[in-house]
Order: sequence, then structure tokens, then C-alpha cells
Amino acid sequence: MKISDSGERGAGIEFDVYARDCPTRAVLEHVTSKWGVLVLAALRERTYRFSELRRRVDGVSEKMLSQTLRALEHDGLIGRVAYPEVPPRVEYNLTALGREAAELLVGLVSFIERHMPQMLEARQARAR
Amino acid sequence: MKISDSGERGAGIEFDVYARDCPTRAVLEHVTSKWGVLVLAALRERTYRFSELRRRVDGVSEKMLSQTLRALEHDGLIGRVAYPEVPPRVEYNLTALGREAAELLVGLVSFIERHMPQMLEARQARAR
Repeated sequence: MKISDSGERGAGIEFDVYARDCPTRAVLEHVTSKWGVLVLAALRERTYRFSELRRRVDGVSEKMLSQTLRALEHDGLIGRVAYPEVPPRVEYNLTALGREAAELLVGLVSFIERHMPQMLEARQARAR
Repeated sequence: MKISDSGERGAGIEFDVYARDCPTRAVLEHVTSKWGVLVLAALRERTYRFSELRRRVDGVSEKMLSQTLRALEHDGLIGRVAYPEVPPRVEYNLTALGREAAELLVGLVSFIERHMPQMLEARQARAR
């Protein structure tokens, strides 16, 4: 994090993810964590309840899913709506900011899915 | 990973990052790991030697940097050029595929840097 001379950005604080103490590093870790990516990408499809989301994101544990949702909620990327019903119903959705992050991540995921054959070939070529 | 009926994609294999055994998950983890993101984004600027890269990516240990570079090289995203000099010189650069991945990551990083003030506000609002 550097203090800018010009004060162009908001309060004159410039965020720089290359600096180890910059708060952007924590957000980057939440957003790009194994489960963070998949949760944000899933919520781009629609609103999910906790148990539905757990099924959608194959392999995530209950604990890791809670933790992931909490971190992303903390960053203002995910909204949590609790309905006063019996049994209680809780739904998760993306905020406007979360939607933008999710679009960027979906771009990354589909890039990898699309180029996986090429990457597998690269591995085989190196192994020869 | 699902086998497609149509065989449209290459050998008829469809990659699906939501499936826990899909090889795309490993690539996604390399690319979005804390150091993976920063290394790819840095190499988008220019070719780096190991020691230069370590200075650029503030906070990375020698071990983690080696590991990160090796994984990305394995996926065909990073190239490694060793010059027969004394002392030996090794340079890292992006492959065409790595460049594309890096562009997508830089988009994500600058999104976070740009919106960090908003996210910090979201945290404070929640804490009140």
C-alpha cells in the first residue's frame, strides 16, 4: 500500500497487491481460493441455499463452505438472506461487486476448461 | 469430467471444474494460488530472472517461488530459459497460453485494487 501524492484515488491511498501488507492480498485470497472461485461462479447462475450450494460445488466440506461464504460476505461480495421460516431458510446471492468479480472468475475458469487439452499435451511433451 | 456424446471438444472429453476429479481443478489452483497470480501478473510485464522475480513479488520465499514456477511450467503457462553462462542465468517468461491466463488475472487484480475502498467500507458497515 502506497500513499499517493496526487490523492487521485479516494482518500489518497493506493492499493498495490504486490506489497505484502496491502489489504487487497486478503481479498485476492478469498476470491481465488479453491472454493471461493467455485462458489462465486455458482452464485452467478442463481441464488442458492447452503445445502444446494454444497451439492453444486462437488467435494466442499460443510466447514469450508461456511468459511468461504463468511469471508466473501465480509468483503461485501456475497449477500446472505435469512427467511424467518421453520425450518429456517438461508439464501446466498451475489452483490453487484460480487457479480463483477464472478464474471472475471468465470472468464478464467472457462479459459482453463477450454485449453485443458493443450495443457495436458504440454505436460506429456515435458514428460517425454 | 464428463465424456461428451457429440465429441465436439477434441477427444470427446468435456472438462468441468465443478467435478472434483477434473484435471482443470489442479490448474485452477496453480493459477489462482496466492503466488501463482502474482507471478503470472509480474511476468506479463517482462521476462524475469529468479532473484528479480523474488524481489518483485514481495514476501514470497525461495521455496514457494520455485514450487509456483515449476507448477506453472508443468501446465505449459511459463517458459524457462537457461543460458550457459557462469554464473548460470535462468529466465522465466510467459507462453502464449500463459499470457492469456495472465491477462485474465490482471483484470481480477485491478478490479480488487480499484474496489478495495468499497470493500473496506462494507466491512466497517458490517462491524457497526
